[in-house]
Amino acid sequence: MEDRVLYSLPVIIFGIVAIIFAAWLARDVMARDRGTPEMQDIANRIFQGAIAYMNRQYRTIAVLALGVAILMGILVAIFEHDHKVARGAITALAFLAGAILSGLSGFIGMYVAVRSNIRTASAARRSLGEALTVALRGGAVSGFLVIALGLLGVLGVYWVVYGFAEGNLPAVAETPFWIVGFAFGASFVALFAQLGGGIYTKAADVGADLVGKVEAGIPEDDPRNPAVIADLVGDNVGDCAGRGADLFESSVAEMIGAMILGAALFTAAGGDPEGSEVGFLFFPLVVAAFGLVASLVGVVMVRPPASPSDPMTELNKGFYVVAGISAVFMVIISFWLLPFGKLEYAICGLVGILTSFAFVYITQYYTSGAYRPVKSIMQASETGAATNIISGISVGFETTGMPAITIGISLLSAYFLGNSVEFPSDSPIPGSGGIFGTAVATMGMLMAAAYILAMDTFGPITDNAGGVVEMSNQPDSVRDVTDALDSAGNTTKALTKGYAVGTAALAAYLLFSAFLQEVERFGGADVDASIVNLADPQVFVGGLIGAMLVFVFASLAMRAVGRAAGYMIEEVRRQFRADPGIMAGTSTPDYARCVDISVRASLREMIAPGVLAVLVPILVGVILRWEAAAGMLMIGTIVGVLVANVLNNGGGAWDNAKKMIEAGHLKDVSGKVLGKGSEAHSASVVGDTVGDPWKDTAGPSLHVLIKLLATITLVLAPLFI
Amino acid sequence: MEDRVLYSLPVIIFGIVAIIFAAWLARDVMARDRGTPEMQDIANRIFQGAIAYMNRQYRTIAVLALGVAILMGILVAIFEHDHKVARGAITALAFLAGAILSGLSGFIGMYVAVRSNIRTASAARRSLGEALTVALRGGAVSGFLVIALGLLGVLGVYWVVYGFAEGNLPAVAETPFWIVGFAFGASFVALFAQLGGGIYTKAADVGADLVGKVEAGIPEDDPRNPAVIADLVGDNVGDCAGRGADLFESSVAEMIGAMILGAALFTAAGGDPEGSEVGFLFFPLVVAAFGLVASLVGVVMVRPPASPSDPMTELNKGFYVVAGISAVFMVIISFWLLPFGKLEYAICGLVGILTSFAFVYITQYYTSGAYRPVKSIMQASETGAATNIISGISVGFETTGMPAITIGISLLSAYFLGNSVEFPSDSPIPGSGGIFGTAVATMGMLMAAAYILAMDTFGPITDNAGGVVEMSNQPDSVRDVTDALDSAGNTTKALTKGYAVGTAALAAYLLFSAFLQEVERFGGADVDASIVNLADPQVFVGGLIGAMLVFVFASLAMRAVGRAAGYMIEEVRRQFRADPGIMAGTSTPDYARCVDISVRASLREMIAPGVLAVLVPILVGVILRWEAAAGMLMIGTIVGVLVANVLNNGGGAWDNAKKMIEAGHLKDVSGKVLGKGSEAHSASVVGDTVGDPWKDTAGPSLHVLIKLLATITLVLAPLFI
Repeated sequence: MEDRVLYSLPVIIFGIVAIIFAAWLARDVMARDRGTPEMQDIANRIFQGAIAYMNRQYRTIAVLALGVAILMGILVAIFEHDHKVARGAITALAFLAGAILSGLSGFIGMYVAVRSNIRTASAARRSLGEALTVALRGGAVSGFLVIALGLLGVLGVYWVVYGFAEGNLPAVAETPFWIVGFAFGASFVALFAQLGGGIYTKAADVGADLVGKVEAGIPEDDPRNPAVIADLVGDNVGDCAGRGADLFESSVAEMIGAMILGAALFTAAGGDPEGSEVGFLFFPLVVAAFGLVASLVGVVMVRPPASPSDPMTELNKGFYVVAGISAVFMVIISFWLLPFGKLEYAICGLVGILTSFAFVYITQYYTSGAYRPVKSIMQASETGAATNIISGISVGFETTGMPAITIGISLLSAYFLGNSVEFPSDSPIPGSGGIFGTAVATMGMLMAAAYILAMDTFGPITDNAGGVVEMSNQPDSVRDVTDALDSAGNTTKALTKGYAVGTAALAAYLLFSAFLQEVERFGGADVDASIVNLADPQVFVGGLIGAMLVFVFASLAMRAVGRAAGYMIEEVRRQFRADPGIMAGTSTPDYARCVDISVRASLREMIAPGVLAVLVPILVGVILRWEAAAGMLMIGTIVGVLVANVLNNGGGAWDNAKKMIEAGHLKDVSGKVLGKGSEAHSASVVGDTVGDPWKDTAGPSLHVLIKLLATITLVLAPLFI
Repeated sequence: MEDRVLYSLPVIIFGIVAIIFAAWLARDVMARDRGTPEMQDIANRIFQGAIAYMNRQYRTIAVLALGVAILMGILVAIFEHDHKVARGAITALAFLAGAILSGLSGFIGMYVAVRSNIRTASAARRSLGEALTVALRGGAVSGFLVIALGLLGVLGVYWVVYGFAEGNLPAVAETPFWIVGFAFGASFVALFAQLGGGIYTKAADVGADLVGKVEAGIPEDDPRNPAVIADLVGDNVGDCAGRGADLFESSVAEMIGAMILGAALFTAAGGDPEGSEVGFLFFPLVVAAFGLVASLVGVVMVRPPASPSDPMTELNKGFYVVAGISAVFMVIISFWLLPFGKLEYAICGLVGILTSFAFVYITQYYTSGAYRPVKSIMQASETGAATNIISGISVGFETTGMPAITIGISLLSAYFLGNSVEFPSDSPIPGSGGIFGTAVATMGMLMAAAYILAMDTFGPITDNAGGVVEMSNQPDSVRDVTDALDSAGNTTKALTKGYAVGTAALAAYLLFSAFLQEVERFGGADVDASIVNLADPQVFVGGLIGAMLVFVFASLAMRAVGRAAGYMIEEVRRQFRADPGIMAGTSTPDYARCVDISVRASLREMIAPGVLAVLVPILVGVILRWEAAAGMLMIGTIVGVLVANVLNNGGGAWDNAKKMIEAGHLKDVSGKVLGKGSEAHSASVVGDTVGDPWKDTAGPSLHVLIKLLATITLVLAPLFI
């Protein structure tokens, strides 16, 4: 069997295994009992709200995507040197394939998630362990679908192009360049899924809180609040559909980027499409396929006792298992696939796995109540909202430190390890071995992606389960179970964001290198793309604009939440005024109308930041040329990663500072507990509300922006030269 | 007469004229009447507090500076190729000269400012116009001293080195490299002056507000508040001494950087120290000297009628005069001094003058109550502190947009204009003509520095005058006059910060180029410093660390304010508890003790961020070498400029949103005014308090950080190769 066929086999087999596993998980969850009729009623409302949003959201995205696909196909066809029509058509079709698969995995994953919440709620009546299992499995459906569909999609598009390429292309090494449209399609859907989802969830959350908790004085998840269903729906569309699209994009973009970089080594090693050097091309896909297996074992291994001491410990245990198996796989794959540099690249992969550990721990340090940062915000709440906010912003800014150093260390060590590899042929492109080392580290980091995503979707499921329990008036003991799970869910959501930022940073560096190779390929002898000179004022100005784009985009995202929350507040106030029976508990509020407002507001408000994110890189590239685009990409990435860290971790820290006060951890000088209802608690609620759009709208949208910058410049590079 | 002597003449003459003018202004202000004994009592307390702070502050800085000077002299002597001892000694002495002159101009300027407040208060009893004149003239003392001493200092050090150089150095073109220690000395003092001043002023302000206004319910500047004098002292040490040191550093660093870049053209044009090409070397100094003259005319021209309609209009009028005269001077100097490229570089200078206009207007748009941004924050206050904060952060992030585009346009147009100049000799360093163009634009922008600084110091003088009037129980009509001036002062302070950020951005680009030339000079044939390759992972990681440094530094600065304010709050509470007569108004609080707490806290808290700012660039350069240092410098600058914009303008917008509500501009749906004492007003006070450390501590300290990164890498470049 040829090596290229042989290497495709594990990808196909494990991809399909992962999909079957997801289907089995879905069946397992669906078969579980659905609790009382009251619970079913609430869960149905959430389900209908979520489906209504998804239908409209994906219809809007489909229209936008179709337009972009056609326009892009035409542009590529005009600017490419040869195979004009084929290249344009394939780019457009790959874009659509990426967009459709991203949408599909998001839709199915969310479908299962909003079906899992009631099963989790019902299981919570029996035991914490069972509820944890249901929630994790429900979340894992999304995780495995996202990664498996991305993997199979890349492989499929690759083979389609390859079939066309044989006999037509100068070298098989060019194939990966043809499929970048797939990554751009994934980015495009992710941008709007994350923006729309982020705006939806926080408009509902902030709106529900400001009128419900602050004005009307009713507790969280109270059924009298007309916005409560919209709030519960929001958790799903933001964390499940949004983050799913985010990591679908990360994995797809990184696989394609790594293949492009692998292609350089493939060529350097001889460039025989039937030789063993094809291992460099397939390496990223095989690693991702084995990562799915490792994640599968991790999910199966989490079988908590009926009442585990801490849900987080169980979930962490699963993560250790995934990381351990991944490390073993990484070594095996390196020695199996790579014709040379086996040991060096295996170590690069281990560096990536360690990096994912580091990110998970750093995030935990900054957002968990057990450590100095959250405690300092809690204490600052004693002197009021202003000091709470100053302290939270200061913590957010501080959280850039460790991640930057971690990224720096892993990037440099992977680079120098890769660069120390000796090539059999004389003249590889300088540094290409090192850059492939950073790609391998990125792949190592991504191996746990399916498991991490399962933990992330665990968050909205347990959150929703808590809402269902609260609204259906279950006994306190059941609420205690869902509270424990909800608190673990908050942590896993924060961890996933930390992990997503880390992968985004490495992915962007890798895609930056891929962009330079694309410029080199297209520009030919006229262009020296091995150098992007910061001393060149165009590069500097490109970088300045990239950095500025991050801030302005985040500003628009935050403002969108503010505006959308404003509509929600008006509607809730209107319902309270129109029907006093709502507050008295005698009549049911019009939940559907609030859901509808969130849907429409989020669809409208996602347009401006989305268009800005797509247009600015194109304008910079067209007006200031590829060097400026490179500067924008690189410096935009650095700033985007840091600002995303500030927003994600700052928001998470505020949230947990409030939770710490609610749990009675804050005492004044006389030793009196300042808990719920105290001035300090009100101050911490202000911080939590400010943190909402930070951590759930602007921050996660920045992950997507970073990768969009990379894929858009990669696809449109020919226009910039 | 030789050209080099001829060109030195205007520098010496106008430098001395500016100092005589400052002395005349000081005498004019001092000769004015000092009002009632109550007013004198209060003013004396402010004066003593300020002097006490300055004494201790400068003693601390002196010790630190002496240590750094010695260490740096030794390092330079070790690492330099030749003239080891001379070079080390001159670098150390130049550093001390820069440090001493910076300290001196700050000290004298502040001495006059804290003497001017009472004269302004007294003049306010007669007319608004007279009060405006007194405050502007008092402020101008600092402005003219800062720029004139910087200018004369650079020229003096230059001639000392030049005298040594003749016959000793391979070329006179190397002379500017010898004097960079002067700029580093200025940076070093500015770092601590701005950090210490910023922490002092906001610790006092936040502390006074949180206990006084929020807990005790007494108005601003109430004499019963023990922290009120510390608060008034703080305005001076932050805005007058801090910003003075900031702009002293800007002008010095830019003059030296421009001389280094001019030296490249000097060499390219022939390199004869007695020829006309010496004009390239002296151009920056002559432009600065004529800028002083333009600013002088501006200050003299502001002669408002007794009751001008709007103080801001009068001050703006003066600025137009300065800009107009500067433009004429710029053209004359270009044609007089430059052997070629006369027209092109004259236009570059005009670009710089236009840029200063743009920055002043953009800042006004984002921080004045007349436009959308501040209004949106005002309206968001209606739904509480959380929405006020979200809205303010969103405005802050948005304010990065226009300045980034402005910097981009001026940089690129100056670069391409400069690059179009045809050189008489064949082989100038590629791009050196363009980079000199950006240097000329920077010089153009800096011509108005003395006037802008006068407007800035106008701020604390009028603020203090208002405090003196309030505490000495003057009639409401007098308070109205100082309120109008105070409001104009808020605007001028914001404008100066916008201007300072703009000059910092251009200065850093220029110093980056100078750094590369220094690397080239020192590295010789082994090093190609014309390229800083962003695709090189070391450059990327250096950039990542530079960007991270900005956030972590700002975080430390904000946290320092929080901690220092904490001490102040405890002290004020203690005094209220210990002596109930204070609140009753029967006994005088212990103001001196609060001043002392601010002094000690600010000196202690400035150490950590200061040391971080000095150590990180050295570590990056030594461990990751000069390419990484270059990446750190450039990307750190971009991020620093943008974050400083966020903090300065966000803080200014919050401040004015609160003022708009106090002025009765916010109405609810029924048309009812939501003014002082409303919930919306409380919400806006939270925003204002959060904005305090943003705009007066962290933001301005970032200006200094950016330039410090540049000067420190420039001086220590030999260690990084």
